[in-house]
Formats: sequence, structure tokens, C-alpha cells
Amino acid sequence: MPVGTQGAVKGLTVAMLRETGATMILGNTYHLAVRPGDDVVRDLGGLHAFSGWPGPILTDSGGFQIFSLAQQTRISDEGATFRSHVDGRLLQLTPERAIEIQENLGSDVAMVLDHVVGLPAEKAAILDSCERTVRWAERCYAAGTRADQAQFAIVQGGLDIEARLWCADRLRSLDFPGYAIGGLSVGEAPHEMYAVLDQVCPVLPEDRPRYLMGVGRPIDLLEAVSRGVDLFDCVMPTRNGRNALAFTWNGTVRLRNAIHQRDPRPLDPDCPCPACRHSRGYLRHLFMAGEMLGPMLLSAHNLTFYQRLMSDARQAIESGRFSDMLAACRRRWREE
Amino acid sequence: MPVGTQGAVKGLTVAMLRETGATMILGNTYHLAVRPGDDVVRDLGGLHAFSGWPGPILTDSGGFQIFSLAQQTRISDEGATFRSHVDGRLLQLTPERAIEIQENLGSDVAMVLDHVVGLPAEKAAILDSCERTVRWAERCYAAGTRADQAQFAIVQGGLDIEARLWCADRLRSLDFPGYAIGGLSVGEAPHEMYAVLDQVCPVLPEDRPRYLMGVGRPIDLLEAVSRGVDLFDCVMPTRNGRNALAFTWNGTVRLRNAIHQRDPRPLDPDCPCPACRHSRGYLRHLFMAGEMLGPMLLSAHNLTFYQRLMSDARQAIESGRFSDMLAACRRRWREE
Repeated sequence: MPVGTQGAVKGLTVAMLRETGATMILGNTYHLAVRPGDDVVRDLGGLHAFSGWPGPILTDSGGFQIFSLAQQTRISDEGATFRSHVDGRLLQLTPERAIEIQENLGSDVAMVLDHVVGLPAEKAAILDSCERTVRWAERCYAAGTRADQAQFAIVQGGLDIEARLWCADRLRSLDFPGYAIGGLSVGEAPHEMYAVLDQVCPVLPEDRPRYLMGVGRPIDLLEAVSRGVDLFDCVMPTRNGRNALAFTWNGTVRLRNAIHQRDPRPLDPDCPCPACRHSRGYLRHLFMAGEMLGPMLLSAHNLTFYQRLMSDARQAIESGRFSDMLAACRRRWREE
Repeated sequence: MPVGTQGAVKGLTVAMLRETGATMILGNTYHLAVRPGDDVVRDLGGLHAFSGWPGPILTDSGGFQIFSLAQQTRISDEGATFRSHVDGRLLQLTPERAIEIQENLGSDVAMVLDHVVGLPAEKAAILDSCERTVRWAERCYAAGTRADQAQFAIVQGGLDIEARLWCADRLRSLDFPGYAIGGLSVGEAPHEMYAVLDQVCPVLPEDRPRYLMGVGRPIDLLEAVSRGVDLFDCVMPTRNGRNALAFTWNGTVRLRNAIHQRDPRPLDPDCPCPACRHSRGYLRHLFMAGEMLGPMLLSAHNLTFYQRLMSDARQAIESGRFSDMLAACRRRWREE
């Protein structure tokens, strides 16, 4: 899922976004509640009408943003109080309010409010956050009123396998239509993340989507797919695109590098995106000259690359070639 | 002509630009010579291949940018020396170099190097700039080597009708395939600009395009068309679009205004542009949240509005209704 934090995937019109191959996008509850306000989005017809996106939309719960972005956050069993990063207003987010916001936004998939702890953390803090995450999941489930909105639960537990398994087991018993794995890709080493997936994926129901939140690099997506993950969101394709970093099958390309100045080749001759209708020399020029078309084109390219990567993975799984694909990509991207 | 200063119309992909109805675009000789360098553009196949624009491209000569943007400019009969606004490098632009750059860029229409003087100016300074502009036009004509590139001459003369007529008459005798009127829209009142057009247009050949450089507001375009102008370029649609100002048949709309917060209506229900697939409330949100999609969409809208305005003017001329259209627009936009 491309990330449309504030009701727009940065740098792409709806038409450009469709052309990347994207089907489902993500919107951020915290950002949209702060600005323009979920009541405004509701009054303008909900997030689908507001953003013009015709496909499914998943909204996160705000739990991660409270952890990463809000100021002076205080967590109690009732919920979280914090100050807006935009205007310093004091705000409260409870499980019930997280669902109310997401019902106002009218997303197809709502995420339960979770309690994310920073890593490394004491075992007691991790267990405390897991217990609170489960209680909040129950309250979210009870608060939901929309038949057209599915709620996904979120497994927390940091890098503590025991805590992860306890949390997954408790949430599984609540019978959610989908399960997310949260609190990863927050600074731990890739092998630590993979070790969590090794243990958690097998205990999540096979017939429900598994969603790894906020991940990640192309190799991380394939490693997670190999462990049974179905769904991802990440700002890397768009954020890196805005910073002149392109993803390709041959690894990343830094377009500000002088080597590209007179390079007539596209980033990838087989890529259907609008950036690949131009030379690397032109793309470099756009970034050096500060033209907003540079970030626009490279965001479109990177999102197209991620969609093609996932599409190729699906096809490889269906034809029994996925382990070959994973091995080839591991070799290719070893240096990244 | 939408303005693609640095080889890109700010905020639009080639596909978006085509959808505005644009056929011909403008590139800036000064900017492209400074960065990435006209030799780089040439090595990457010329401005058409570089930018990906499939239609005609006109390049200006750099004369106006030397006047408005360069630092420490010194003008002699040989040419202009000045410091780059990007890195302070000392540069020289002669008539021969202006044509060399434009031949490297490979535009379809090249503009001769002209000498623009600031207004108000002494009569002697105006006559001096006119004489130099004519001599430079002769040198540009002699320097041209490409059969696939037309050169347009530029009439200068400030607000002095006598100087304008002298300059137009001399340039006409040189038999250029097109004629531009330069040095206007630099701070004078609209009626002063119209008074120059009243006198100059009739002495320019009827069978050659007349191009009013750097103009302007929608009403200015129609007033100029009524006086016989065929071709325009202006940054107003894109620059104003980036600043949340939209052009509509009912006048300009400032989208940051709080009145638009919950407005579900598009800017113009009959406009085919991507901005008009959204509500005014959404467009306002994009600007308030600093999303680059706001400038992108509003630039596309404003360019589409300008193209529709010119298309409507053409149809009105063909069906004998142009004076009615002009009168109606004068009434509508009186307050602007």
C-alpha cells in the first residue's frame, strides 16, 4: 500500500497512482484527525470521495504516530493524551475515539489502537504494552458500528518472542478478520525482524491477511513474504523518491550523482512509469534544478517498482518459483 | 504556451501537460544554458528528447532574464556580460551565442536576442535599446544555421509609440517568419500596454504570428487577441497555481480561504482537469497541509483554464462572436 498520510500520496495524482499498479492505499488517522479533522473529511463524503481514490483504503489507528510524532505523550489504560505536532493542541486518543475517527474517514480496513514501545525496552514494559494492546483491541472491536469496515488487530511485543506469541494468541482468540504485526522496523537489525516473523506468522490464522506495518526495503518485503506476510505499507518508495533515490532491479540509484549528467538511458527500460520515459540525465537535472517534477517522477517510479516487485512475487509463488526469486534478489541486493 | 523554464513545466508530467490542451510550450535559454548547460541538453538529444515534449517548443533568447534576473549586467554592442543567478559565474551572451544555445536546444522557434530597458526610461535610452535590438536581430539572423528552426524578431520601444513603430518597421523589413512584442507587462498599467498593441499590431505582417511575450492575466490575453495577437506565454497559471490561486470563468478563487473548508463543489464542474475531480475542500486541505499535490493540481487547472480560454476565443472569432465574448469577460472580471 502506498502511503497517503494526509489524504494524498505525496507527488502523485490519482491517475498517476493508478498507473503504478497500486490497488489499496493507506491513510493516517492521526494526521487526518489533526488536519483537516475527521469531521471535515466525513462532511466531504469520507476519505474515498475526499481523496478520489477508487480502490480500498486502510487507515492506521494513530498508535504509531503517537509513539513517533506526537509531543508530551502520556499513556494510561483509558488512552493516550498528547500534543499535536502541528499546533500544540492537547488531544486524546482512546480506542473508542480511534474507531470513531476511522468510521468518519470511512476506510475499508480500520486498525485497532495499539500501544507501541520504543526498543530496546524492559520485559515488564513490553508485557505491559502487550496487555494494553489486547485490552484496547477488545474495546475497538466493541466500539465498531460500520458493517462496511473491517478491523485488523495488531500484534505487539518488540523483539521478545514470548511476548509476541502471547499477544498473537490472545488476539487470535478475538477472531479479527485480519492481523498486523506492529512495532518493527524501528531501528532493529533486519535479522531481528525476520526472527520475529519466523515465530509470529505461523501462529496467525492462515485464512486471514497478515500485514507487516511500516516495512520496508525491497528485500525486507520478499523476506517477509517468504515467512507468510501478505500486506505492507511503507513511505520508503515516496520519501526516497523525493530525495532522488531510485529503486531498480540492479539496486538503488542516487540520481544527484554527477555520473548521470549525460546518461541517455532510462532508470529501467522495461518499467512502464513516467520517469522511465526520460533519461537519467534529465531526472538528475530536475533534482539539481529543484524542479518538483523530479520528486513526482521518482515517487511514481519507486511505487511502480514496489508494485511490480509484489506482482512478480505473487506470480512466482503461484508458479512455484518464489524461493528462486528470493535467492536471486538476496544476491543482487546484498550490497545495499 | 505554458512556461517550462528549466525543461519542465513546474508541477506537471508530460501526460498532465498534454491533458491541459497545450500544444506548444516555452523553454528558457538563459536558465537552460546556466543549468544543466545547453551542451548537456544537446548531448541528451535536444530539448524535445530531454523534456519528452512531443509538440512544438519555442525558446526565448535570454534577453529578458538578463534584464530581470542576472546580476551585474553590462550591455555593450557586442552583447551582455552578467553573473549567473545560480553560482555567480561570469557569463556572456551575444546574439551569436543566443542562437548557438537555441540551436543546441533544438527548439522549433528561436527568439532573437533583444535589449530590454526598465520602465520608465529616457527617450534616448529607449531609442538606443531599439537600435541595438535591430542590430542584434540582424546578427541572430546571420548566425542561424538550422533549417528546422524559425527565428522570431522582437519589437522593443517601451511605452514610446514612435520608438515602437520605428523598431517594428525596421524588423519587418528583415522579413522574419514571426514577430514578438517584448518589454511589456513589466509594471505599466494595462491600458498603457493595450495602447502599445493598438499601434504596433497593425504594422506587423498579417500573415506572420504575432507573439506578446510574458503576458498575462486572462483579460489581457483577450484584449491582446482583439488587437491581433496570436501567441502568448506567461508563468501566471503555474505560479499562481502553486500559490493556491485558481482562475475560473467567475474570477479568481483563493483556495486557502477558510470559506472553502467544507465546500464539496469542484472549482468548475465543466472543467476536465484533474483538480476538478476533487472538492474545493480537498484542494484547500492540500495547501493547508503543505501537500505538493495542491500545487500540481492547481497548476494543471490553471493551464487548462488558459487553454480553454484561448480555444473559446478561436471558436468565437471563427463564428463572429468574439466581440461578445470580450465584452462578457470584461464585465465578469472587472473586479479582478
